[in-house]
Amino acid sequence: MRFVTAEYNGEVFVGVVEQGEGKVVHLRLAEQAVDQRATIPSSLLECIQQGDNFLRKVEKIAAWVKENPSAQYVYDLADVRLLAPIPRPPKNIFCIGKNYADHAMELGGKSDIPEHLIVFSKVPTTVIGHEETILRHAEVTDEVDYEGELAVVIGKRGRAIRKEEALEHVFGYTIINDVTARDLQERHVQYLLGKSLDTFCPMGPWIVHRSLIENPNKLQIETKVNGEVRQKASTEQLIFNIETIIETISRGITLEPGDIIATGTPAGVGKGMKPPRFLQVGDVVEITVEGIGTLRNKVGE
Amino acid sequence: MRFVTAEYNGEVFVGVVEQGEGKVVHLRLAEQAVDQRATIPSSLLECIQQGDNFLRKVEKIAAWVKENPSAQYVYDLADVRLLAPIPRPPKNIFCIGKNYADHAMELGGKSDIPEHLIVFSKVPTTVIGHEETILRHAEVTDEVDYEGELAVVIGKRGRAIRKEEALEHVFGYTIINDVTARDLQERHVQYLLGKSLDTFCPMGPWIVHRSLIENPNKLQIETKVNGEVRQKASTEQLIFNIETIIETISRGITLEPGDIIATGTPAGVGKGMKPPRFLQVGDVVEITVEGIGTLRNKVGE
Repeated sequence: MRFVTAEYNGEVFVGVVEQGEGKVVHLRLAEQAVDQRATIPSSLLECIQQGDNFLRKVEKIAAWVKENPSAQYVYDLADVRLLAPIPRPPKNIFCIGKNYADHAMELGGKSDIPEHLIVFSKVPTTVIGHEETILRHAEVTDEVDYEGELAVVIGKRGRAIRKEEALEHVFGYTIINDVTARDLQERHVQYLLGKSLDTFCPMGPWIVHRSLIENPNKLQIETKVNGEVRQKASTEQLIFNIETIIETISRGITLEPGDIIATGTPAGVGKGMKPPRFLQVGDVVEITVEGIGTLRNKVGE
Repeated sequence: MRFVTAEYNGEVFVGVVEQGEGKVVHLRLAEQAVDQRATIPSSLLECIQQGDNFLRKVEKIAAWVKENPSAQYVYDLADVRLLAPIPRPPKNIFCIGKNYADHAMELGGKSDIPEHLIVFSKVPTTVIGHEETILRHAEVTDEVDYEGELAVVIGKRGRAIRKEEALEHVFGYTIINDVTARDLQERHVQYLLGKSLDTFCPMGPWIVHRSLIENPNKLQIETKVNGEVRQKASTEQLIFNIETIIETISRGITLEPGDIIATGTPAGVGKGMKPPRFLQVGDVVEITVEGIGTLRNKVGE
């Protein structure tokens, strides 16, 4: 299942997009039709917090809708506006730094390949959805750069999660563009400021439930700028794979449903090109992750 | 006014502590007595989000309570349990690194004194209140250290806030212990992991409204461990003062009501001693900031 947060006729709702059909089911309205009650929250975060209970309800609703399609709760995807699946995360987004060796090298040298997991964060005010505008922030930075990344959404609370159980704590997967002001990242030493300018975290277009992703550590990932391929890799190349990331973060930190972890970006960022090529107003960034989809955003003033 | 989040008879409420009187007013119940209505939220975060409206209501209620004291809504401070003033911040706590020159030097040398603001974060699951227990996390770290800090709580939303207006965006001030696992801080390069273990952000005992603090850039700050003075400084020594911190963070990041910024710690942390002295189970850390009060926490298993 692919879960969206979307807007239709001014109302924000949680929906399920059926693979290949270009249709989205308004879960709460469909639930009302099936069960004459509405227990599905209007925020996907709250749905995820309901745990397996939510998934069982969705399965029931989806099966029923298949037999009883109706324009009341099944919309054309083209008619809704997608928001970020979690438009307002309840804490900063966890981000992994230098998690592909060739990216670490393009930003420095062999000594930049980390021995231990590097974790920083982006504030929640950075989040925007598919097709929303990344601000150029010309008054603050001259070096806006893209970073295409697979992101993990936690589904089950836990501390000291072992690698063997780590994927059971995942709700699903989405795509994040870890937009970065390189000059600020460098000047301020710790990454938070350069990573956290408003609109610097495009996320989406949806969250794909983990049951649909056979192996998250073996997904193709590709970033295009204005149609030109800039990043092309597989999550097989992650230095620290998803299980290790979850184990390491959760050693002393309780992970909670709705937590988002961006797993790092492969080689090919603008900063690594010779000469560097940073994003400008009008540029379009498209990130495609196998099994998930494509996240597309334009840079604007 | 000093604002608390407190628990009495199992109910969490927002209260005002009157200076020197050892009494706390349950704002919502007092409002009901004055106005026959209850518009004061039960979370201090929501109160702060109400802006000046909230302050006006509190002034009216406080004046009325002075004339009409009643055990129904005025409790002895000793009878309530204080929680962190904002027990669950809606994003990570912003923290400033190496913002006192002598602290930067005790951790390294003169080259560690920063030219630009260093900003990192602690996840919201770190927050505990006055007198709550800091976990020793012996399975994860051998080097738990204290950092006494003045913290700023934002009251008014803004981006590109100029220094001249910065203090108008402050709701008030509190104390934070930026507890740190030094070994993790070092090993993982970016600070987030070493700063974010569960219980690593004691906060409180209350938020003092900015109207009570004449000059936040001139407050004595002192940290004791088991009664022994370890840190003693003045916020006059901040390399980047509060106005500069707010201006710099907000250049491209929208600051929101309830955002918390820990302003950095002076010299005297355990890591800087020769040999280093880290916190152990049973240790008691007390941080006193002039005009605010004392935040006290014990280390436990």
